[in-house]
Amino acid sequence: MGRNFKIAIVGTTGLVGRTFIKVLEERNFPVSNITFFASKNSAGKEIKFNGQNFIVEELKEETVKNYDFALFSAGGAISKQYAPIFAQKKTIVIDNSSAWRMDENVPLVVPEVNPEDLSWHNNIIANPNCSTIQLIVALKPISDNFGLNKVIVSTYQSISGAGQKGLDKYHKEMLGQDVGDKHKIFSNAFFHPVSAEQQDWTVEEIKMINETRKMLHNPNLPISVTCVRLPFEVGHSETVYIETEKDFQKSDLIEKLNTQENLIIIDDLHKDDYPTPAMTQDKDEVFVGRIRKELSINNAFWMWVVANNIRKGAATNAIQIAEKMIEMNLIN
Amino acid sequence: MGRNFKIAIVGTTGLVGRTFIKVLEERNFPVSNITFFASKNSAGKEIKFNGQNFIVEELKEETVKNYDFALFSAGGAISKQYAPIFAQKKTIVIDNSSAWRMDENVPLVVPEVNPEDLSWHNNIIANPNCSTIQLIVALKPISDNFGLNKVIVSTYQSISGAGQKGLDKYHKEMLGQDVGDKHKIFSNAFFHPVSAEQQDWTVEEIKMINETRKMLHNPNLPISVTCVRLPFEVGHSETVYIETEKDFQKSDLIEKLNTQENLIIIDDLHKDDYPTPAMTQDKDEVFVGRIRKELSINNAFWMWVVANNIRKGAATNAIQIAEKMIEMNLIN
Repeated sequence: MGRNFKIAIVGTTGLVGRTFIKVLEERNFPVSNITFFASKNSAGKEIKFNGQNFIVEELKEETVKNYDFALFSAGGAISKQYAPIFAQKKTIVIDNSSAWRMDENVPLVVPEVNPEDLSWHNNIIANPNCSTIQLIVALKPISDNFGLNKVIVSTYQSISGAGQKGLDKYHKEMLGQDVGDKHKIFSNAFFHPVSAEQQDWTVEEIKMINETRKMLHNPNLPISVTCVRLPFEVGHSETVYIETEKDFQKSDLIEKLNTQENLIIIDDLHKDDYPTPAMTQDKDEVFVGRIRKELSINNAFWMWVVANNIRKGAATNAIQIAEKMIEMNLIN
Repeated sequence: MGRNFKIAIVGTTGLVGRTFIKVLEERNFPVSNITFFASKNSAGKEIKFNGQNFIVEELKEETVKNYDFALFSAGGAISKQYAPIFAQKKTIVIDNSSAWRMDENVPLVVPEVNPEDLSWHNNIIANPNCSTIQLIVALKPISDNFGLNKVIVSTYQSISGAGQKGLDKYHKEMLGQDVGDKHKIFSNAFFHPVSAEQQDWTVEEIKMINETRKMLHNPNLPISVTCVRLPFEVGHSETVYIETEKDFQKSDLIEKLNTQENLIIIDDLHKDDYPTPAMTQDKDEVFVGRIRKELSINNAFWMWVVANNIRKGAATNAIQIAEKMIEMNLIN
């Protein structure tokens, strides 16, 4: 029998926090001890985990102890402040916020893509942005086997990417209530906030570009994206147009994509078979469809990449990072 | 005072047919006489036009007379059968179906783009596909001024593109009813049916590619698209990535786009100003936002193109074709 691990969850009551709990249970993650942290507002609430009741604790510097892993999803400010405090107590922080992702001393990891980056860290590991995770799972085998000359992505992102607050607004608008935002969520398409770094680009677009480059260890990767938020509850989708160095047949693409762990191809347009966001409910895999060679030039193709943004795009990937570190014997 | 025209509407009771009536009224189209045709099922219904009551007539070969213009939106099969019958009676048919669009004896026209093609025809003129119309209005000034080396489009299309039937299904699903389709419309993303011409591509994608090439008179235009249907009622949007022959500044793009008739730029991400599908309700223009130079290479940029698919994408463009022919003195 392997050993069990001491876990802390930071941001327990949020959408991703609640999914951490669900995914840990589903995967029978080997837990010896678990502590649930949240803000003052949520402290004292009861939480069920593996049939036992727990009380949510307020996150305070003086109550932080040593854990094997702390799974963070409480926003960038909390991560910035508390991740170093947990790290000092020899806890591996796996942080779902964007606070540490581009820090050169912090590895940014998708276990199917760059597990080797788990072998160096200062006790903080960053979980990538949801739309980046699903893209890079599908991109990696293409990059490895055919080389990437150009990657043009448009996203179709669900409102759960804006957390419980986004979902609540969507449901209110569905009932005809005006939530006071400039752009409606329901029956509409809209954009993420503007980036602080790049005039005219959204935060989400810059994240996808920078994080993909960091994980593929290619700072000049020619990738560009437009990110769009849409009125559905769960599941992000992406149209991905790729020009490669080497030529290929469609069967070569499928063969290489099929070598990728946790990637499922659903691709028969004649039978209306393709992945949709609605089918990712409770799914942890990345789904790929609409694989087709470009008609006007060689060495180019499209694919449609779909995943559950709260699971593989957040909670599941974080837990898979912990599992991979255990598997790689990186935990003392 | 100009002269007034004899009009026939074919497919009166459909979503586009009803919008023909609304747009003719709004634009004070100079009508001397108007006849409303529909299928047997809808014949006998009352229709109001400019305050007067009319009875919808059943479309039969023997009742077709001479009109100045017949506006068709009753599906491809009706267009294929009846457009030549109207054309023989010296009526200019403006057909919203895909039946005649790629016929080399039939001009395919967006008045802001290729009005010169209205000067040759055999009494049938095709109205392009909704997603093509809005794209090409924005593409034309870019093509004319900077040259097009590559055009990569992803669409975000509303369910009204599937007509009243599509809207009805969407509304039923919103109320929790299962309409029996393989893929849900509500809270989901899905694709158009497979093309008969190209394995792995949808009809909508092939239409956009072929129709754009025909109207720009460039059969080798390097354009590729993925078309996606989404859960909103009205308004199609498109992310458009373009590589040009000549270099430019963002201000050059805006200057040239501003020369295009019926194109409105809304573009200040810092103020959350950009077009959305929800704002196209009752609008006839094409809206462009998110204009930004690509970061990784020169001579490339993105834009976001939005229009009302039932108006500019169908009814309004057809009526603008008639108006343009009158303006160009092409009607005897």
